[in-house]
Amino acid sequence: MRLVLVAGNTETARIDGISAAGASPAEATHTPSADAELVSYGRLVEAPSLPRTPGGCPSPALVTRAVRELVNVECTVVDAGIGKPTAAPTVAVGATPGRDIREATAVSNASALFVGGRRLGSRLPDRRLVIGETVPGGTTTAMGVLRALDEDAPVSSSLSRNPIELKRSVVAKGLDASGLAPGDAAGEPTTAVEAMGDPTLPVVAGLVVGALETDKRVLLGGGTQMLAVAALVRHADVDGRLSLATTRYLADAVPDFTEAAAGFDADVRVTDPGFDALVDLDEPTEPVPDGGGGAGSRGPAALARFAAGEMKEGSLMGGALALAAHADVLDEVARESVDLLAALR
Amino acid sequence: MRLVLVAGNTETARIDGISAAGASPAEATHTPSADAELVSYGRLVEAPSLPRTPGGCPSPALVTRAVRELVNVECTVVDAGIGKPTAAPTVAVGATPGRDIREATAVSNASALFVGGRRLGSRLPDRRLVIGETVPGGTTTAMGVLRALDEDAPVSSSLSRNPIELKRSVVAKGLDASGLAPGDAAGEPTTAVEAMGDPTLPVVAGLVVGALETDKRVLLGGGTQMLAVAALVRHADVDGRLSLATTRYLADAVPDFTEAAAGFDADVRVTDPGFDALVDLDEPTEPVPDGGGGAGSRGPAALARFAAGEMKEGSLMGGALALAAHADVLDEVARESVDLLAALR
Repeated sequence: MRLVLVAGNTETARIDGISAAGASPAEATHTPSADAELVSYGRLVEAPSLPRTPGGCPSPALVTRAVRELVNVECTVVDAGIGKPTAAPTVAVGATPGRDIREATAVSNASALFVGGRRLGSRLPDRRLVIGETVPGGTTTAMGVLRALDEDAPVSSSLSRNPIELKRSVVAKGLDASGLAPGDAAGEPTTAVEAMGDPTLPVVAGLVVGALETDKRVLLGGGTQMLAVAALVRHADVDGRLSLATTRYLADAVPDFTEAAAGFDADVRVTDPGFDALVDLDEPTEPVPDGGGGAGSRGPAALARFAAGEMKEGSLMGGALALAAHADVLDEVARESVDLLAALR
Repeated sequence: MRLVLVAGNTETARIDGISAAGASPAEATHTPSADAELVSYGRLVEAPSLPRTPGGCPSPALVTRAVRELVNVECTVVDAGIGKPTAAPTVAVGATPGRDIREATAVSNASALFVGGRRLGSRLPDRRLVIGETVPGGTTTAMGVLRALDEDAPVSSSLSRNPIELKRSVVAKGLDASGLAPGDAAGEPTTAVEAMGDPTLPVVAGLVVGALETDKRVLLGGGTQMLAVAALVRHADVDGRLSLATTRYLADAVPDFTEAAAGFDADVRVTDPGFDALVDLDEPTEPVPDGGGGAGSRGPAALARFAAGEMKEGSLMGGALALAAHADVLDEVARESVDLLAALR
């Protein structure tokens, strides 16, 4: 069993209002390197600060790390175009940050990234892989890929109020810039990623295909982007069992998630870490400058922002929670996450 | 507690007859990437084959991995100039492979590599670090650094018969090409590494200094190169407790090892994995094409080549064995190593 976190950046994430994977687009560029450090070491090393939503919800990588403190499982980070320095150990697959999907080409080496991921997925020694991503703006690039593939799967957001109209507009511009109409890349996953994706998507899809080809079990930990990966795998005509693991927060916000997954012949496990119970433990949950659930908080209520619908998923959170449930330590995750958050500089 | 393996290549290793960290100099260029994969995954992924001496002794990384199968300890690989593709996760510190020490400059960015190692050593979350290296030709570059520092510490070899005259000649040429007489770099560790070292040495020295500055305990796992690291640390006027952990095979071949370490105010722990008992388990120990301890062997006698004086150390073997002894599983290491070797493709 191994967790595999595929981390990358894109120019798409710089579009104002598109992502909450950082208090601002500039801060969000550090999120993948910070998440890689959090899952690897349980602390920040090179990354400047804990990634948070504008509302103060900390990165879900914190929860993934909390699970690693409770369950002995290795975690390997794959560099799918990390744009900022990180002290986390990463596997190289030849990726660079993705461009803005409103340009003609978003991921010029999508095919090579798929091949690199597939090779790694086939050769990793583990019989079970739990795979996820950290890429700011990832729900928008996933939406772009889904539309290019002619899939109408739902799209979540790291913001409690999903800027879905902005995403649709960006995706429409992206399809136009690539000379594609919706559905023009159906059955052509590489074309879809090249035009509309981000570098994590072909790497994860490749990992899945390589793992399935070598009879490994695959659990995709995440939300919208893992739906897009399932779509890419099926559009590549690859069979094999796929399971998605996500959080209750994502599942609540996207009621048709399970149905959409079923459309890609993937089952869904939903796990609830119970962070709503943390609301009462300290200050109010409204964002305040440095307390409660606010931007600088180190208190339990910061984690309760998940239960308020922020962030919802990412950095393998849902996959890690499924592991915690399997190991019967789910009810320890909230306290472990609180302790980890309090200990961060 | 964390193992840290610092891996790199140099042009120095291409000098014919200098290293047995691969059946040939060409094969040895793959050794760091293979060792990184062995310690990380327990198998080879991108690296083409198991590194072996011409006599068939497998890489000591196999033993380090065997210990990881017995003792739950994380291992982080630092890329100090790995020259071939590896699927192992690695931490980047801005290193490229070292040049031939017979050129004027061997490691042009020695100072930056020291700073990068120091930063990482100070920031890793663990209270104890066990640090080692894999770099073919490393005893020669270590010898070069020691001579530049005016230290007369002994120099081991991965070959059972140490090509010490060849090394002396290479070091003499290197000092000459750098415009240095022996001892000219005393008290100037960066100068010594720039002129005569390899990229792993400043990274390890930096890790040690950063760890000591943050009150971590440091165990250097290895032989000659770790002596050179101890020398670099002391020539940088850094105090703090240093311990070296090495194998009985290294200690037997270098009788004055402990005395030399004491000269750098470092104590030594010697551990015997008992591979000599494996000699009788299958074929003869003389090199034969594909059996016994020979080049292609997967049998226990291949590991007995360690007891015949080949390889002796490397890839954290001595450090890992010290951990195994501490965890009271030392007598399981030989069987675990045999099983791991047999399972390799």
